Amino acid sequence: MQPLAVTMGEPAGIGAEITLAAWTRLRADGPRFVLLDDADRVAALAARIGSAAPVRKVASMAEGAAAFASALPVLHRPLPAPVTMGRPDAANAGAVIAAIEEAVALTRAGEAASVVTNPIQKAVLTRAGFPHPGHTEFLAALAGPEVKPVMMLACPGLRTVPVTVHLPLRVAIDRLTTEAIVVTARIVNAALRDDFGIALPRLAIAGLNPHAGENGTLGEEDAAIAAPAVAALRAEGIAATGPHPTDTLFTPHARATYDAALCLTHDHAMIPVKTLDMDGGVNVTLGLPFVRTSPDHGTALDIAGTGRAAPGSLIAAMRMAAEMAANRQMRARSAA
Amino acid sequence: MQPLAVTMGEPAGIGAEITLAAWTRLRADGPRFVLLDDADRVAALAARIGSAAPVRKVASMAEGAAAFASALPVLHRPLPAPVTMGRPDAANAGAVIAAIEEAVALTRAGEAASVVTNPIQKAVLTRAGFPHPGHTEFLAALAGPEVKPVMMLACPGLRTVPVTVHLPLRVAIDRLTTEAIVVTARIVNAALRDDFGIALPRLAIAGLNPHAGENGTLGEEDAAIAAPAVAALRAEGIAATGPHPTDTLFTPHARATYDAALCLTHDHAMIPVKTLDMDGGVNVTLGLPFVRTSPDHGTALDIAGTGRAAPGSLIAAMRMAAEMAANRQMRARSAA
Repeated sequence: MQPLAVTMGEPAGIGAEITLAAWTRLRADGPRFVLLDDADRVAALAARIGSAAPVRKVASMAEGAAAFASALPVLHRPLPAPVTMGRPDAANAGAVIAAIEEAVALTRAGEAASVVTNPIQKAVLTRAGFPHPGHTEFLAALAGPEVKPVMMLACPGLRTVPVTVHLPLRVAIDRLTTEAIVVTARIVNAALRDDFGIALPRLAIAGLNPHAGENGTLGEEDAAIAAPAVAALRAEGIAATGPHPTDTLFTPHARATYDAALCLTHDHAMIPVKTLDMDGGVNVTLGLPFVRTSPDHGTALDIAGTGRAAPGSLIAAMRMAAEMAANRQMRARSAA
Repeated sequence: MQPLAVTMGEPAGIGAEITLAAWTRLRADGPRFVLLDDADRVAALAARIGSAAPVRKVASMAEGAAAFASALPVLHRPLPAPVTMGRPDAANAGAVIAAIEEAVALTRAGEAASVVTNPIQKAVLTRAGFPHPGHTEFLAALAGPEVKPVMMLACPGLRTVPVTVHLPLRVAIDRLTTEAIVVTARIVNAALRDDFGIALPRLAIAGLNPHAGENGTLGEEDAAIAAPAVAALRAEGIAATGPHPTDTLFTPHARATYDAALCLTHDHAMIPVKTLDMDGGVNVTLGLPFVRTSPDHGTALDIAGTGRAAPGSLIAAMRMAAEMAANRQMRARSAA
């Protein structure tokens, strides 16, 4: 398989150091990956934090794949401004964005297996004119106007999907529709089948109100909006259940009964994965014409450059990206 | 210390069988407790599920305390209708309610240390004329008109408090006020100090919107309602912080930074405790003139009478009730 294309993310954040740590962990067994970053500054950072990972400038993904066993391969993209760890500089915003665009292009061209993105510092990109609320929306824009991206959070034993994402809670409730739940569930169902190899995915639809509205005494949306979505999904052969009371949907017992839980608000989906946070959660974008994963943490500017950042979430994101790409390729071959 | 008064809860549910199992686990080390139930039906249930716990009819808490080492003491309160496990009967609703009232009276009279309630089947009590939304509100009504009960969920390493409880989510947002957060936080602060022995409790106030509103771009309530509450609490010497983004407030790292998290909605508070659910969470009512705890699960009618129900949450509730009562008594003695 081709190597993964790993973006630099915010260069003043922990992206490069967790990528160095991931290489040390994955060099023997893979998956192989290539970092899109300034190779000179990555090498200087490795020396500074005492990383044993050698850094190798490479000119292509193929060269990076060949080099992976002996060094962290970096597709060298020099940064215009020097990096002070912990202090993002808008002068480098263009390079941060270009690395994401290039990782997508390499993946769509078949030179990379998947895109794995390191965390960005959104406010810095916004100041530099970046018009997107975050990675997910930018990747969808790169993929084309017909693409509806769906964010999934995953950790061992649990996958959750927020049906509404970056909206004030009141607005999220106002805009919630049966159609939005159904459209999201279809994308999740297809992705679990094609990218995760689950023949008949079981989708648990969570309720909005306490106790999923308790028969209408604690709110109408569960019966009026969520229940018809479950019925519509079942009518088209998708194994959906619910709406379930959200608070009891993530107990160890309940987690075993579904492959993904669709939650109606951002925090209902985020809380359980981040609470478990065992080895680090993974943020996956479903519904794109390419595979993209990401660690579920931020740039950690407060500890950037110290080498203390834990690489577990990035490593989990890399492993998941490779597994998803393998499933997609297997499916494409068997369809051909 | 006096024994705990344990209510029967819904007799067709799992209350009696988990109480039998709790006695087997706690008989040697305690805390000691007395069950308020129909002793004949508890003995018959013990035989049916193969419990080794002998059942002893007692006439008082003191007699129950003396009997505890050799048998599960039951303050015999005969049920008017025969019990079919899994099928609640409104004919027994009066006895279910009377057991709660009596447990409170025994505790307030100093004959019991605390009240521990087994789960009730609210719909059955409602049909029988019970006007309260649940245990918490009923206990507050028994305690008097000036009492504001506060629900706290606790499991090893995490305590959460919902500032709004059984309301439709939209209504909870509409009714949220700075005052409600402040009043709740004061009760939590006093309870952590007096009942849990924490000298200067650290309270984390969670936000309402995704990312705690992200500087107002994702909702106004965090800045307009929650932030002034944090400021007001700090001004009166309470160690409150926030509003924090709710999704990252329950990671293992974040959990170590506070003694209780106050959440602005029911499910924001419930999800993390029920997700962890390691040994069973405990539901505690703060702000009452007596100590009350409860397991954080329901009546489990589907498995009632099989002996399969896990007693971990009830046992944790009993241990916490005893610890809280001991702290209160110690404090009362040192104040005297």
